Amino acid sequence: MVNSAGERAQVQTTQSEVSADRIDLALGHPSPELLPLELLRAAAARRLGQGDRSFLQYGYEQGDLRFRTQLAGFLSRGYAPRAGCSTEVSPDELFVSGGVSQALDLICSLFTRPGDRVLVEEPSYFLALRIFADHGLRVEGLDTDRHGLLPEALRERLRQDRPAMLYTVPTHHNPAGTTLPEARREQILELCRENGVLLVADEVYHLLTFAGDPPPPLAASAGRGGLLSLGSFSKILAPGLRLGWIQGSPDLLRRLATCGFLDSGGGLAPFTSAVVCSLLEEGAQQDHLHRLRLAYGARARALAASLGRSLGDVTDAVPPAGGFFFWVRLQGVADTEALLPRARAAGVTFAPGIRFSTRGGQREYLRLSFSYYGERQLEEGVNRLAEAVRGFRLPERGS
Amino acid sequence: MVNSAGERAQVQTTQSEVSADRIDLALGHPSPELLPLELLRAAAARRLGQGDRSFLQYGYEQGDLRFRTQLAGFLSRGYAPRAGCSTEVSPDELFVSGGVSQALDLICSLFTRPGDRVLVEEPSYFLALRIFADHGLRVEGLDTDRHGLLPEALRERLRQDRPAMLYTVPTHHNPAGTTLPEARREQILELCRENGVLLVADEVYHLLTFAGDPPPPLAASAGRGGLLSLGSFSKILAPGLRLGWIQGSPDLLRRLATCGFLDSGGGLAPFTSAVVCSLLEEGAQQDHLHRLRLAYGARARALAASLGRSLGDVTDAVPPAGGFFFWVRLQGVADTEALLPRARAAGVTFAPGIRFSTRGGQREYLRLSFSYYGERQLEEGVNRLAEAVRGFRLPERGS
Repeated sequence: MVNSAGERAQVQTTQSEVSADRIDLALGHPSPELLPLELLRAAAARRLGQGDRSFLQYGYEQGDLRFRTQLAGFLSRGYAPRAGCSTEVSPDELFVSGGVSQALDLICSLFTRPGDRVLVEEPSYFLALRIFADHGLRVEGLDTDRHGLLPEALRERLRQDRPAMLYTVPTHHNPAGTTLPEARREQILELCRENGVLLVADEVYHLLTFAGDPPPPLAASAGRGGLLSLGSFSKILAPGLRLGWIQGSPDLLRRLATCGFLDSGGGLAPFTSAVVCSLLEEGAQQDHLHRLRLAYGARARALAASLGRSLGDVTDAVPPAGGFFFWVRLQGVADTEALLPRARAAGVTFAPGIRFSTRGGQREYLRLSFSYYGERQLEEGVNRLAEAVRGFRLPERGS
Repeated sequence: MVNSAGERAQVQTTQSEVSADRIDLALGHPSPELLPLELLRAAAARRLGQGDRSFLQYGYEQGDLRFRTQLAGFLSRGYAPRAGCSTEVSPDELFVSGGVSQALDLICSLFTRPGDRVLVEEPSYFLALRIFADHGLRVEGLDTDRHGLLPEALRERLRQDRPAMLYTVPTHHNPAGTTLPEARREQILELCRENGVLLVADEVYHLLTFAGDPPPPLAASAGRGGLLSLGSFSKILAPGLRLGWIQGSPDLLRRLATCGFLDSGGGLAPFTSAVVCSLLEEGAQQDHLHRLRLAYGARARALAASLGRSLGDVTDAVPPAGGFFFWVRLQGVADTEALLPRARAAGVTFAPGIRFSTRGGQREYLRLSFSYYGERQLEEGVNRLAEAVRGFRLPERGS
């Protein structure tokens, strides 16, 4: 990665625009320094210099086969880090999307009707909840523990009626950081299949594992039907590409690829996927992912250490094994939303737990992101947060 | 535009893949030779070589301001070809989309509910009709004449109840080639405003005028509200970019930019719009558009001449003043769909009129596209069509 003076200046400008003096630990963006401009410049120069202009035309609805073949190879390697574990991905099981948000929007349009029920984890990714709301869907949260969704809660819920969909983030959950054990994945998938509920797995953090190996992704079962797994280049390359994929059985993908929107406009990203295809062909995505794992892993550990030093008396935050987020429970703070103004005054922000709740709960939690800032700024952010927490709790003690 | 041997070979490969020996005059794709690979290669090299990586990050929901400013300047010039006509476009009135199909899909998600009624022209763009169907909308066709939609038909229809939306292609209509006169545009806009019906104008062919000047686009009235005008780089640059825009009042655009899908994923095309921004900054889009007008204009005239020579006894096809399509009425052919197998046998295809109808009509029409093929192939295509028509009509005379 090139880090010229010009790039550095730009990164600092962008960062200061976003955060000014404040450290915004609510921000779930990748770090500007980790956006691989030089890799993408080289990939674009290579692909656009080959004299092939097929990717300037309307593209195949499911996405370009050359790109899907490269992506399938990359995922087959990435999804099977453990010897003996077979998670071979076929290009036929991949549909090229404009990222997870676009994928979710399309899935809601085609597989639900306003008034339908969608099950999610409690807590869940708040912006997914907004997409569901735009489609007139009624969202219900299912109980979770420190390993994620409880199959028993799902079984119990399915006794009532048939929801349209279950949306889950099985690995390195946003916001809770949990990773669902293999046995639970199987149980949940079976329950959904038995009851005709579409299982939508947002597996966007799966490849961003920096400690241990997660169980195979739900994507590995996609070929058997009833399941759509969402992936994206936003977390592992660059969000501005708006490029992702949906993995599912050919039957389910056919419904996506033959909808009016796709039939009219063709594939969703011929140009961008051609550039990224070149990057995959060179193995540059794999190398970059390795760098990201090292960088984000170091940040997660630094954030955990800072929390231990500054807030160890009120939290026992365990660093997550992957992803972008740290889910922190603060003892003695009954409502983190009420803490927010004090945190802002101290020069730091976070995402209060209630924002991720389907039922006005999670008030004793807050979400800290370690994706955007470097280690020094994370430490300073935690110091400021500790200052806000102390100021917040002292009056209570005095009263 | 570079036309190296490698590029030529590719173009021929692509073309032969699509059409084999057959000439497919149903195909509404731009001509492979007219896709500006070299312009885009240079623009990507320029933009990705500037050390600015802001477009790799999540983008502003409405779209990048630098890009919207360039686009506004380009549209202000393009929309006001006549002296004294003010059609200044403001960047605030522009929302960056993933093309017209994506824009229509998003508008349906946010401004309609299943069961709502959408009014369209009879005939209308058949793939838009499919997008409406995916959203559970009920489509009703309004009568047109050789100048387009009849305001009287709209007025009459609005006496019954309030549809959610009117979808119209006011300039160089697909398929009919009609261009709505200025007075009708005003009347239709007023009727929609008075009745609270969202007017969605697909103005994707407006800039592709090669004979005369069309009236100002409906986009010129977008600032006053009640109207969304859709534009795209698919017809004037490259469909594979999946890049377009919606022009509307800031009020309407706010609804688009604040939806869950955009809030979650950010702007729809940070990377692609950054590349195209560079192309706009260099004035290359304007130059390319000029080339396209000359090329497509020559093709439209060549197609008209061929029709006159080979089918002059059954059609009085007048060449359209812009766009991609020729709407042909064949006297003595009661159903062009029935003609299709004979045409295929003769080595040519077309889009039968019924495909564009909301009510199983338009059977005496067919749509020929002049966007994909060069003049020599268009002539050969018409010769084959004439052969099919002669074979089709002879038995009738004999019976």
